[in-house]
Amino acid sequence: MRAPPGVSPADFSAALSRLENALGKDWVFLSDADMEMYRDPYSPFWHEDADRIPSAAIAPDSVEQVQAAVRIANHFKIPIWTVSTGKNLAYGGAAPALSGSVVLDLKRMNRIPEVNEKNHYALVEPGVSYFDLYRYIQDHNLKVWIDPAGPGWGSPVGNSLDRGGGSTPMNDHFAAVCGLEVVLANGDLLRTGMGALPAAKTWQQYKYGFGPYIDGIFSQANFGVVTKMGVWLMPEPEAYREGMVSVPKHDDLIPFVETLSYLRDSDVLRGTMLLESPVLNYRASQGGTVLDVPGGPSIADMEKIGAEKNLPYWRVVARFWGAQNVIDAQWEYTKEKFSAIPGASFQDNHAFRLPADPKEADNVQSYYLGVPSLSVFASLSSQSHMGFSPIIPMTGEAVFEALRVFGQAYTDLGVPPKDQVFSMPWTFFAHAFVLLAGLPISHDMEKNRQWRKVFERLVEVSAEHGWGEYRTHVAFMDKVASFYSYNNHALRRFHETIKDAIDPNGILSPGKSGVWPKHLRKM
Amino acid sequence: MRAPPGVSPADFSAALSRLENALGKDWVFLSDADMEMYRDPYSPFWHEDADRIPSAAIAPDSVEQVQAAVRIANHFKIPIWTVSTGKNLAYGGAAPALSGSVVLDLKRMNRIPEVNEKNHYALVEPGVSYFDLYRYIQDHNLKVWIDPAGPGWGSPVGNSLDRGGGSTPMNDHFAAVCGLEVVLANGDLLRTGMGALPAAKTWQQYKYGFGPYIDGIFSQANFGVVTKMGVWLMPEPEAYREGMVSVPKHDDLIPFVETLSYLRDSDVLRGTMLLESPVLNYRASQGGTVLDVPGGPSIADMEKIGAEKNLPYWRVVARFWGAQNVIDAQWEYTKEKFSAIPGASFQDNHAFRLPADPKEADNVQSYYLGVPSLSVFASLSSQSHMGFSPIIPMTGEAVFEALRVFGQAYTDLGVPPKDQVFSMPWTFFAHAFVLLAGLPISHDMEKNRQWRKVFERLVEVSAEHGWGEYRTHVAFMDKVASFYSYNNHALRRFHETIKDAIDPNGILSPGKSGVWPKHLRKM
Repeated sequence: MRAPPGVSPADFSAALSRLENALGKDWVFLSDADMEMYRDPYSPFWHEDADRIPSAAIAPDSVEQVQAAVRIANHFKIPIWTVSTGKNLAYGGAAPALSGSVVLDLKRMNRIPEVNEKNHYALVEPGVSYFDLYRYIQDHNLKVWIDPAGPGWGSPVGNSLDRGGGSTPMNDHFAAVCGLEVVLANGDLLRTGMGALPAAKTWQQYKYGFGPYIDGIFSQANFGVVTKMGVWLMPEPEAYREGMVSVPKHDDLIPFVETLSYLRDSDVLRGTMLLESPVLNYRASQGGTVLDVPGGPSIADMEKIGAEKNLPYWRVVARFWGAQNVIDAQWEYTKEKFSAIPGASFQDNHAFRLPADPKEADNVQSYYLGVPSLSVFASLSSQSHMGFSPIIPMTGEAVFEALRVFGQAYTDLGVPPKDQVFSMPWTFFAHAFVLLAGLPISHDMEKNRQWRKVFERLVEVSAEHGWGEYRTHVAFMDKVASFYSYNNHALRRFHETIKDAIDPNGILSPGKSGVWPKHLRKM
Repeated sequence: MRAPPGVSPADFSAALSRLENALGKDWVFLSDADMEMYRDPYSPFWHEDADRIPSAAIAPDSVEQVQAAVRIANHFKIPIWTVSTGKNLAYGGAAPALSGSVVLDLKRMNRIPEVNEKNHYALVEPGVSYFDLYRYIQDHNLKVWIDPAGPGWGSPVGNSLDRGGGSTPMNDHFAAVCGLEVVLANGDLLRTGMGALPAAKTWQQYKYGFGPYIDGIFSQANFGVVTKMGVWLMPEPEAYREGMVSVPKHDDLIPFVETLSYLRDSDVLRGTMLLESPVLNYRASQGGTVLDVPGGPSIADMEKIGAEKNLPYWRVVARFWGAQNVIDAQWEYTKEKFSAIPGASFQDNHAFRLPADPKEADNVQSYYLGVPSLSVFASLSSQSHMGFSPIIPMTGEAVFEALRVFGQAYTDLGVPPKDQVFSMPWTFFAHAFVLLAGLPISHDMEKNRQWRKVFERLVEVSAEHGWGEYRTHVAFMDKVASFYSYNNHALRRFHETIKDAIDPNGILSPGKSGVWPKHLRKM
């Protein structure tokens, strides 16, 4: 038995026996085999001492058991690392930031107290996966859609609180959160928003409640254990259609993104779009990089290839959900606006009524239709990776700069063009682009070491240019947080002040997002 | 000179002289005449001792001056009450919750560092009014719309942080906040979200930053002084149209609201709508009440009046902004969906291209076109009032229940039908209705006393039925907060824990939203 850091074996033993009393012996896990289940399958530290391994894991079944467990941990000052379903691949899996923490695994708390079809929301526990919620809705024949994360085994609670993104118009997952129930470090139980009214009727309908609106401080955070969450759903739309918009020239990107931003912020283009470059993808398919590297081919060269191969320089698939006549009009308007760019071309893609005929639905990634799946593992994400995900402005200029800046960074690091992992921007969030590159992880320690170096350098370069990560792997949370340093780390100091006040023993998820309790703080 | 509570005259005098040094003599106000300017013009306590009057007011011109002022206040433990433009009529004006506080008036901080036309946002200081921002946009010929609060002299910062609502699709003002700059109680300066990156490029484009997302805790709160705020704007739409939907029968409300909710959550109906009842309004015009009172006319009676006078029972004006073909399709679809209710009827209202011809624009309340005005003072709000504004579910059943419950409450209080001030629900926020009744205030002390009693009883009845106020007058903040009492006031205790940690001397806006510093806490 390995005790958590700073906890004596005797205390740990006493705590475990109390935890067994509170949760039942079956739900306190200690064996090495069990601990393997809580390691990060995409760990950048395989076979290295720095790999995060928990000392134990506990799986309560109710709010009362969570309260009991947290009180025991608080009494013995045992660090606990909370996970919902514990997936979160590319960002750390179920593994704690602080090795030796006890994983608080909420998978058994998988109840769905309510799904409301008329006001379009659900109330869920943290162990509810996107699959569970989808199945519940299907079983009850409710006319609402969820917006699943890429892999459907994740949970609305975990993904929303880590501020993940989806694919449909409800893609900003934290924006869809409405009302939390939270167990605090002292075991106290809090309900936010309208949930603070004992007879609450709008806990899942109105977010803010009265007075300070605190839900945000439980996201990407270690200030409490969320045990229930309201999440807004989308009314089942009547039809779906998609269309492709392409422009031929490199410099077309400037008006292209400007039009994209106009249409998105006008609620015409909704859901998540990926800015693609068929020309650059072609170069990548020939062993090159999509990035703008020193000595790389000129814009004229690339445009020539585009013309020869009939590949547009830039492209986006626009998706529409809703009434048939409305989405037809939106697609018409989208074409009209993009037509201002000389050479713009358009292609009608799949279009069908909803609920979709299975054959038609097969043509579209299921999550665009609100259906959770694990299909992402069949595509580019099949490889173990760490997510590099900076936010850049939603402008063509920013995209050009990013391609140049990261091209230079990779070159400076000596990474050959074919290995320069990169991603074009996505529109998971309003008003800004997010890049989502998956840097490869393997069981090769030397390669992992090199990729960690690359990762850190990319984060650094990113910050130098004013682009911050929206989320990161547990292994890099300190690094990423360190760049959010305005006014001598005022934001981190503020987070720490709150942390010390509401979790004075520092037991909740130490190190999450770079926020450490006093006794573990490095500076 | 009247010193703030708990501050010795000597200390106050010393503080004032330091404040004069820091801000300039002209910007420290002490005279009785000056203090009149900071009283609540809609105070429910006119001529009574309980009326809130500040001891002084200060008007810094820069972030550095705010920091200096807050440090001086912190040193001498002087309570300061922050206002932006200090309007906030019906909710307390510029007057502090704690009489004798020094008003920190940010009106001079009225700079607009940036308005971005391509990514649709502005960065503003707290003293910037909706008029100022509108004028800036006009002067620079930028193609973006603001969403003004009812009276245009309010400020985006003040209104958004009090979580007010507007009229266009950007009507949830707090939801449009993106990035804050905050002076903390110790004078420290914080930037939230992406603003914590020193070279930040997306401070106004991406809200959440990295780690705990804290913006919400500066809304309806006393945790810091916001000195800059990012606010999302709407791309200038190309056309506007409105249409009226009416249904004849009382019970039609159930499917009527269900359809409204479906269309709203599908992004077809956007902006703020008011649910109206021409039949009930007719009754009110005859000296009756719109509420469902014991012994009042039966539903059949009312429906008969409706049939005779050709008045629908329920009605809503739907508004559409955007591309002509899209909004035409949305209006068509809206009619199609409501047509499922037997007897539903439709009327095309104003429709025009944007920017609007002034003659056409005159037909529409200017704030529906993103233009700030003071026209609300020419209508029902012209009378001094206190805003009673509970959130109820967006269902017909909830509306019926509210009409009955508040009808009973008014009856129990002995308020005659003609004086039973009430409001039909608005859609300022997604997924829920808000009622907005203005209870009258005057210079008649006895009447004010009665209306305060009415107000408190309505709030109480509201809470008993699970409906909480979304915002309230300073005079009733304690009362309203007292009902958000789940688990022995866990939420308030949490707010207080944060308050004590980040403002240990309790100088910032004591009493705001019922959050008091330790030394002034009543329980």
